[in-house]
Amino acid sequence: MLKLYYAPGTCALAAHIALAETGAEYEGIALDFSSKEQLAPKFLKLNSKARVPVLVTDEGVLTETPAILAYIAQSYPDAQLAPLDNPFEFARIQAFNNYLSSTVHVAHAHKLRGSRWADEPSSLEDMFRKVPENMSHLMKTLEDTMFVGPWVMGDSYTICDPYLYTIARWLKNDSVDVASFPKIEAHMKRMEARPAVQSILPHH
Amino acid sequence: MLKLYYAPGTCALAAHIALAETGAEYEGIALDFSSKEQLAPKFLKLNSKARVPVLVTDEGVLTETPAILAYIAQSYPDAQLAPLDNPFEFARIQAFNNYLSSTVHVAHAHKLRGSRWADEPSSLEDMFRKVPENMSHLMKTLEDTMFVGPWVMGDSYTICDPYLYTIARWLKNDSVDVASFPKIEAHMKRMEARPAVQSILPHH
Repeated sequence: MLKLYYAPGTCALAAHIALAETGAEYEGIALDFSSKEQLAPKFLKLNSKARVPVLVTDEGVLTETPAILAYIAQSYPDAQLAPLDNPFEFARIQAFNNYLSSTVHVAHAHKLRGSRWADEPSSLEDMFRKVPENMSHLMKTLEDTMFVGPWVMGDSYTICDPYLYTIARWLKNDSVDVASFPKIEAHMKRMEARPAVQSILPHH
Repeated sequence: MLKLYYAPGTCALAAHIALAETGAEYEGIALDFSSKEQLAPKFLKLNSKARVPVLVTDEGVLTETPAILAYIAQSYPDAQLAPLDNPFEFARIQAFNNYLSSTVHVAHAHKLRGSRWADEPSSLEDMFRKVPENMSHLMKTLEDTMFVGPWVMGDSYTICDPYLYTIARWLKNDSVDVASFPKIEAHMKRMEARPAVQSILPHH
């Protein structure tokens, strides 16, 4: 049976929702980042990168949100979470999710994880200050140039939707008013009406 | 016919090599970043993110290296650039390439693109100073925990290989001695023996 390691408040929410959408049997295992459970030897053996999500399958261990989301979509085709037979449409979904992971999530991470990239307290404060501006700019880019509606890719709900929703939930703490982005705000409400999302949120 | 927009020295080299490996007909279009051609209105219309690679297909425009690499592998199955029939093995490849884009490329980008995440000159200098340490640490992680050999994923050459090679070529300018990572150094030589790589390098 699949095992998903996650931690509340992290990007692992996206994979958690996607799994729930499939109806697959899986075990969700919560890590407590406040007590640094991601640094426990048992977890590091699964993922030496000390991050979530981690998906343990019968064939081995997977990491990285866009890869796990694509795996879920391909492994449970009946859930129709991605256009699997069209390389171009599939790549559009990968491109969106890669943009979230390598640009949007990274911009957010400069708020509390600045020490990954700089050492001086003044640098970390500088990064912290810039997060609202960067996240606002990126949300505007997403809303104006990528989001189709009603779901990210148009009429079909895909693995882009739980990932965008996961990051949109961080905006309030990033001092960004999601009401400035009406399409993304409406998308959040649309997501929260889904039974799969309602079943997962209490764990996060 | 496919069109690949690239700029010398950028991560677009990975997609350029992968295209060459397929034998597909395509047109390569070089942008001159030193004269800011990525900000020209004509290019921004293709990719408002002002970055390369951009792959223009008959169906539309694709961005983001891991997505473009997966598209190339899926569109040219005869080139056998990824295990397309096994969602787990395909996801392992996506996970590796996502790690390169969202963690390794991002670490490198703090050398010259620090102004994306901070404003003060002292912060940018701090980020610049930390790049060799971060890139060394990440190369060690890649070499010790991810690289199988002789190719990234083992006996089969995949879309992970041109991407790792592309980033390994940045190490010298990042003040990292690739000789400290003998598997990655040998991989670079293995890559440079491939006709597809030899055909593309003169353009970069």
